[in-house]
Amino acid sequence: MPAKDLTEGIPEKITHFFSVKSEFSSLAFDSKELDPLMANPLPETITDPKKQKPSEKNEQRPTEGLVSWQSIKSKIFKGVSYVSGDMRVFGEWMKGQFILLQILDWVLRGAAQVMFVNNPLSGLIIFAGLILQNRWWALNGFVGTLFATISALILQQNRGAIAAGLYGYNGILVGLLMAVFSNAGDWYWWLLLPNIFLSMACPIVSSALASINSRWDLPVFTLPFNILVCLHMVATGHYNHHFPQVLIQPRSSLPNITWSEVDVAKLFQSIPVGIGQVYGCDNPWTGGIFIISLFISSPITCAHAIIGSAVGMVSGLALAAPFENIYFGLWGYNCVLACIAIGGMFYALTWQVHLLAITCAFFCAYLGSAIANLMSNFGLPACTWPFCLSALTFLLITTETNTIFKFPLAKVAYPEKNLHHFWKMKKAEKAENLKKELEEMQRAKREQGEKSEKEEGFKLDMLNTEKGRIDACMVTVEEDVPTDNSMGVTDNTADT
Amino acid sequence: MPAKDLTEGIPEKITHFFSVKSEFSSLAFDSKELDPLMANPLPETITDPKKQKPSEKNEQRPTEGLVSWQSIKSKIFKGVSYVSGDMRVFGEWMKGQFILLQILDWVLRGAAQVMFVNNPLSGLIIFAGLILQNRWWALNGFVGTLFATISALILQQNRGAIAAGLYGYNGILVGLLMAVFSNAGDWYWWLLLPNIFLSMACPIVSSALASINSRWDLPVFTLPFNILVCLHMVATGHYNHHFPQVLIQPRSSLPNITWSEVDVAKLFQSIPVGIGQVYGCDNPWTGGIFIISLFISSPITCAHAIIGSAVGMVSGLALAAPFENIYFGLWGYNCVLACIAIGGMFYALTWQVHLLAITCAFFCAYLGSAIANLMSNFGLPACTWPFCLSALTFLLITTETNTIFKFPLAKVAYPEKNLHHFWKMKKAEKAENLKKELEEMQRAKREQGEKSEKEEGFKLDMLNTEKGRIDACMVTVEEDVPTDNSMGVTDNTADT
Amino acid sequence: MPAKDLTEGIPEKITHFFSVKSEFSSLAFDSKELDPLMANPLPETITDPKKQKPSEKNEQRPTEGLVSWQSIKSKIFKGVSYVSGDMRVFGEWMKGQFILLQILDWVLRGAAQVMFVNNPLSGLIIFAGLILQNRWWALNGFVGTLFATISALILQQNRGAIAAGLYGYNGILVGLLMAVFSNAGDWYWWLLLPNIFLSMACPIVSSALASINSRWDLPVFTLPFNILVCLHMVATGHYNHHFPQVLIQPRSSLPNITWSEVDVAKLFQSIPVGIGQVYGCDNPWTGGIFIISLFISSPITCAHAIIGSAVGMVSGLALAAPFENIYFGLWGYNCVLACIAIGGMFYALTWQVHLLAITCAFFCAYLGSAIANLMSNFGLPACTWPFCLSALTFLLITTETNTIFKFPLAKVAYPEKNLHHFWKMKKAEKAENLKKELEEMQRAKREQGEKSEKEEGFKLDMLNTEKGRIDACMVTVEEDVPTDNSMGVTDNTADT
Repeated sequence: MPAKDLTEGIPEKITHFFSVKSEFSSLAFDSKELDPLMANPLPETITDPKKQKPSEKNEQRPTEGLVSWQSIKSKIFKGVSYVSGDMRVFGEWMKGQFILLQILDWVLRGAAQVMFVNNPLSGLIIFAGLILQNRWWALNGFVGTLFATISALILQQNRGAIAAGLYGYNGILVGLLMAVFSNAGDWYWWLLLPNIFLSMACPIVSSALASINSRWDLPVFTLPFNILVCLHMVATGHYNHHFPQVLIQPRSSLPNITWSEVDVAKLFQSIPVGIGQVYGCDNPWTGGIFIISLFISSPITCAHAIIGSAVGMVSGLALAAPFENIYFGLWGYNCVLACIAIGGMFYALTWQVHLLAITCAFFCAYLGSAIANLMSNFGLPACTWPFCLSALTFLLITTETNTIFKFPLAKVAYPEKNLHHFWKMKKAEKAENLKKELEEMQRAKREQGEKSEKEEGFKLDMLNTEKGRIDACMVTVEEDVPTDNSMGVTDNTADT
Repeated sequence: MPAKDLTEGIPEKITHFFSVKSEFSSLAFDSKELDPLMANPLPETITDPKKQKPSEKNEQRPTEGLVSWQSIKSKIFKGVSYVSGDMRVFGEWMKGQFILLQILDWVLRGAAQVMFVNNPLSGLIIFAGLILQNRWWALNGFVGTLFATISALILQQNRGAIAAGLYGYNGILVGLLMAVFSNAGDWYWWLLLPNIFLSMACPIVSSALASINSRWDLPVFTLPFNILVCLHMVATGHYNHHFPQVLIQPRSSLPNITWSEVDVAKLFQSIPVGIGQVYGCDNPWTGGIFIISLFISSPITCAHAIIGSAVGMVSGLALAAPFENIYFGLWGYNCVLACIAIGGMFYALTWQVHLLAITCAFFCAYLGSAIANLMSNFGLPACTWPFCLSALTFLLITTETNTIFKFPLAKVAYPEKNLHHFWKMKKAEKAENLKKELEEMQRAKREQGEKSEKEEGFKLDMLNTEKGRIDACMVTVEEDVPTDNSMGVTDNTADT
Repeated sequence: MPAKDLTEGIPEKITHFFSVKSEFSSLAFDSKELDPLMANPLPETITDPKKQKPSEKNEQRPTEGLVSWQSIKSKIFKGVSYVSGDMRVFGEWMKGQFILLQILDWVLRGAAQVMFVNNPLSGLIIFAGLILQNRWWALNGFVGTLFATISALILQQNRGAIAAGLYGYNGILVGLLMAVFSNAGDWYWWLLLPNIFLSMACPIVSSALASINSRWDLPVFTLPFNILVCLHMVATGHYNHHFPQVLIQPRSSLPNITWSEVDVAKLFQSIPVGIGQVYGCDNPWTGGIFIISLFISSPITCAHAIIGSAVGMVSGLALAAPFENIYFGLWGYNCVLACIAIGGMFYALTWQVHLLAITCAFFCAYLGSAIANLMSNFGLPACTWPFCLSALTFLLITTETNTIFKFPLAKVAYPEKNLHHFWKMKKAEKAENLKKELEEMQRAKREQGEKSEKEEGFKLDMLNTEKGRIDACMVTVEEDVPTDNSMGVTDNTADT
C-alpha cells in the first residue's frame, strides 16, 4: 500500500540517510545477515519442506565444509524468496510476459497491497478468502482493482508503482465496500457502473493526494478509497432510486451492555474477524485465510496485524462499546492497518517502534470510535479514515532519539527487508565512526609523542581489535554485492 | 479568477518550463500564429463587422500584396483585442485615469473573474444580467466587489492582482449569495453590514489561502467565498433575530421521480440556468447573457461552460436527482466552473485535456451531490465547494505524459493565449531538438569519415529540409517580438 | 504557547530578516531602549515598591551623576525581570536543580503558556484561580500538564521547548476540559485514565502538527487540545456507560431575546469571565486572577486579552446571541486568545497590527458562532477551534507593507521583547540605509566635482547631522551587548 513511487520532492532531512547508505543501495538479501531475522518465522517448512532437510542435517553436522552449507542455505533463501517477500524474481520474469498476464499480476499485487503486502500469491489467497465470503463482493473487488489499474495506465502513472499494485489497492476497496454498503442487494448489476467510474477515479485522487503528501514524504494510504466511497455513499444516500445505501444512524440512547453476558470465545474470534474487516468481511475463516496470506509474505506484518486486532478489541471493551460491534470486528480493522504501518513498515522495527505501533493502535481505536460516531450523522461508515489519520499522525512525529528511524518513502519495501537495510546502515555508520576515532587517536598519538604512552596504548589495543571487526564487516559487505546480483534481486521494488 | 499573483514559491518542476520558454516570455498575439486558433470563434463579425470586409475581399484576391494583407489583419486583431481576451490595452490606458474610474474597472473585472474572465466589458454585461434577475442582489454583489477591492488596497496586496479583479470575484459572490440565502427578504438594508464586513475579510482569507496553495502552485479559486458565506450562514442560522437564513434540511424520504414526467425543454433550458447559477441566478435569460459575456472574452471558455452545464444535467439524471433540482441548475454551476478551469485555463488545451475537463465535470457533479447532502445537515447550501475541490484535485495530478501540460500559475492568462504560448513553446523545443540532432549528425559524420556515406546522406538531406523549416520558424519568432511590442501587449497580465 | 522550537524549515522570506538582525541576536533588555515601552505598565510598583523610590528621586534631581542613575535603573529592571517576562534568570537557575523541581517549573510554565505566557509565577497564580473555581478541575488540569510534559520527555522532544512549557499547555486544557464536559460528576476518579492517555498523546499530536505547520512557520496553537478533546468527547458521547459527556444539542428554535432585559453589569462582568473561559472557568474572580497573572508577565498581553474579551461580547450582541451565552463568557475566550496572538505576540506591535488584532478578534467571534453551531450537531463544544483557525488565517496573510512584520517563529518571545527587537532591527536598517546614502552622496560629489555645489552642500550638511545620529545610535547598540550579557539574558528563550 505505500505509495513509494508517487514521491517527488524528498525532504532535506533524509539526504543524510542517502549519503550514508548510498553505497549499499544495491544490496539485498544476504543470507548471513538475515539469519537472526528469518530463523524462525520464515515459512520454509510450509512452502519448501524438501529443501529444509539438508539444512537440518547440516545443523547436526557442523564440522562439514562451510562452503557447501553456505550454498545450501543460499539455495533455501532463494527458494523462499520466490514466494515470500515481494516475489521480485517472479515480478522480473513477468515483465517479459503477455500484457494481460502482467495486468493479472498487478491486480493480485494490488489486492494484497491493502495490507502493505506486495505479493501476487498473497493476493490470490486474499481473493480466495473473498470468494469464500461473498462471490458478488469478490467480483466487485476484482472489477475495481482491474479498472483502477487500467486507469493508471491510461493516465501514464509511474509503471513501477502500477506493477507494485500501488494503484490497485484503492480500487479493490472501492469495489468491495460499494457492494458491501449497497442496499440494492447482491447481483444488482447496475452497481458496476459507479464502481467502474469511481475505480477509474482512484488513480486521479491518488496522484493528487500524493502531490500533497510527498511534501512530508508521506504515503497516501487508503485515503483515495475513503474519499471516493464516502463520496459515493453521501452522493446517493439511503433514499435514492438508483443506488440506495444501507441506513446508518447515530446512537441516540444508552447501549444495553451487561458485562456478565460477554462471550469470551467470540471476543477471541473477533481477532481474525477484525483482520477480515479490512476487506469488509465478517467471516472468521476469511480472516484466517488473510492471516495466512500475510504470513507468507512477511511474518512481522502478520504479527502486527494480530496485535493490532487484539488492541482494537481491548479498546472497545474499555470504551464500553456494544459487544456486537466488537464481535463484528469493527474495532479491529483500523488498528490492524495502523499497527502494521507503524510496526516495521515505515519505521525500522526496534523495541521503541514496536511500543509506538501498539500506542498507535490504541490511539487509532479511540479515533475509530470518534470517527464512526461523527460520520454516522451523515449515514456514513468510518471506512479506514481512523487508520489513515492515526498512521499519518504517527509518521509525522519528529524526535531527537535515533531509535525511531523513519525510512524515506522510496526505500520502503517490507518489514524484514527494511530491518535488514537499517542494520546494514547502522553497521556502516558504526564502522565509519570507529575508523574516524582510530585515525584521530593515531594522529593524536603522533602529536603527543611519548606522553602518557601507557593509557593510550591500552585504548589503541582495543581500537585495533575493533578495526579487525570493522574490516571483517566491510569484507562481508563487499561480498554481499555479487551474491545479491547473482540472485537478480535489486534494492528498491518500485524503481524497476 | 486564478490568483496568478498570489504565488510566492514556484515549485521546482516548473523551472524547466521557464528555462525553455523564457526567451518567449515577452511575446503575445502575433496574428500569423493565431490564425488556426482564432479563425472561426473570434467575435470579429459581432464586434467589428466593418473591418471584417477587407479580410473577405483579401481572401478573394490572394495575389495582392502580402504586406497590405498583413497590415489589415493586424488591424483587425488589434481591434478585436480591444474588447476580447483580457482587454489589456484598455487596462493599460486605465492606469493613467482617475482612481475611482480605475476602481470601477477593477470591480467590473472582478465580477467577470468568477468565470476566470479578466475583462471589464464581460463584467458590465454580467452586472446587466444580475440587474435583470434581481436588483437587490445586484446591489449586494456590487457592494461586495467594491469593498473587497478596497480592503485589498488597504491591506496593500499586489496591485497587479487587484487590477485583474482577483480580489473582487470572491466579494461579488459573498455579496450576492448572502442576499440570495437571506430569509429577511429583499431590501433588508441591515444585511449590508455583514456584507461589507465579510467582503472586507475576503482579501484576508484569499491571502492566507494563497500562502498555502502557492506551495503547490495552485490558485485559491472561490474558496474564500465558500468559507465566508458558510461562516455567515452557520454563524447566524435559520433561527436568528438579526440575520435569518433560508431553511435547508437534509432529505429524509425517497424523492418522487416519475421518468415519464421529465420535461425535455426544461432540461435543455437547465444548461443556461446552470451557467446563471454560478452567480446564484435561476433566470435562463440571465444565463444567456452570461454566455454572451463569456463568448466576448474567450470562446474556448464559453464552449467549456456549456459542456460543463450539460454534463452536470446528465449526471443529475444518472444519480436519480429530483427533476426540480436539475431544472433549477443546481447540478450545473459547479461543473461549469470545473470544466472551464481544467479545459484550457490552467492546462494547455489538447484533446487529452479536453477529455480530462469532461471527466472533471462528471467527478464534480458527483462530488456536488455528495457535498450538498452533507452540508444540508448544517442548513448550508453546497456553494462552490464541489468545484473548488474537484478542480484542485485535477490540478494536482502528476503524470508522465507531455500532452497534459499545466501552466505555472504566474503564466496563466486566458485559454486562447495560454494555447498560443504552449504552441510557441512546443515549436521552440522541437527546433532545439532538431538543431541538436543535426549537430550530432554532422559531428558523427566528420568522425565516421566516408563510412556508410549513402545512408547518412539521405538522413542529412531530410534534416537539412527540417533545418530550413526551423530557420523559417525562428525568423517568425524573431519577427513576432516587435509586432507584439508595437501592439503594446505584454505577456503576463498580472505582472503589470 | 508558540511552538517556537518545533520549527524545522524556516521559509525563504525570512532569511533577509536574519541577515539584517543577526548581529543583534544576542541582545535583549537594555534599559534605555525600553524606557518608552515600560514606563507605565511595568509592574515595578507592585512587585518592587522599594526600588521604585530612587528612580522617583532621580527624576526630581536630574543633575546628579548619570552613572549612578543608570546603575539604579539597571538594578530595577533586573529585579523586575526576575518575575516579569519569561523569568529567564529563574529558568537558568532551575537548570541546576533537582529534576522534580524542574518538572514543576515546566508544569507551571505550561499552565501559563495557554495564554502565550512563559512564566512560572503566572502559572502558579493561574493554578490558584483554578482551585478557586473547582478543585477537581484543577487536579485534572495538573495531571494533564504533568503527563503531557513527561510524555514529551519520553518521546525525547526538544528540551528547550519542554522547559518553556510548550508541551504542557495542551495537556492542562485536555485535563481541564475533559473534567468540565464530563457528565459523570466531580471526583469520578476513572476519568483520570483517559485524561492520562490523552495528555500523553498531546506531544505526539503536537509534534505531528508542528511538522506540517512549520512549513509555513506557524505555531500549532491549541490544535492538539482541540483535536484530542473533541476525539474523546465524540468517541464516548453522551450515551456511554464509562465516560458520558454533557448533552450539547443544536438550536432548533428562535432564542428568546428581549433587548430591554439586557443586564449591563453582567455584560461588563463577561469581560473577566471571558478570560476565565480560556480555561473553562465561569467564575469572574478566577477571570480577575488570570488578568493579574497576565499583567505580571506582559502588560501588552494583558491589554489585548481585555480588548479581545470586550470585542467578543460586542459581537455576541451584534449577532443576536442569547444573553446567557454572552454572560457566560462563551463569546469572549476565543477572541481573547486571537487578540493576544496577533497583537504583539507573533507580529511586531504597530498601530496597524493593533487594528489587525481587533479585526481578528471580530472575525474570531463570527467564526466562533459558526463553529459552535456546527459542532453542536455532533454534541461538541467549540473548544478553541475558532481561535486557532482565525489566528492561523491572520498569520498567513502576506502583504507589501512593512508595518505588518511577522517574526520568525524561533524569534518569538513575549510582546515587549518582540517589540524591542523590532525597534532595534528598524534602527539598524535605517542606519545602514543612511550610511549608504551618505557614501553615494560623497562619491557623487567627487565625480561631479564643483558642479552645482550649493544644493549638494545643503543636503550634505543634513546628512552629516544624520551621520552623527547614526554614530550615536551605533554606539548605543555596541554598548548594549556587554550590558545584556552581564545580565545573563540571551535572546531566544527556546534556544537555551
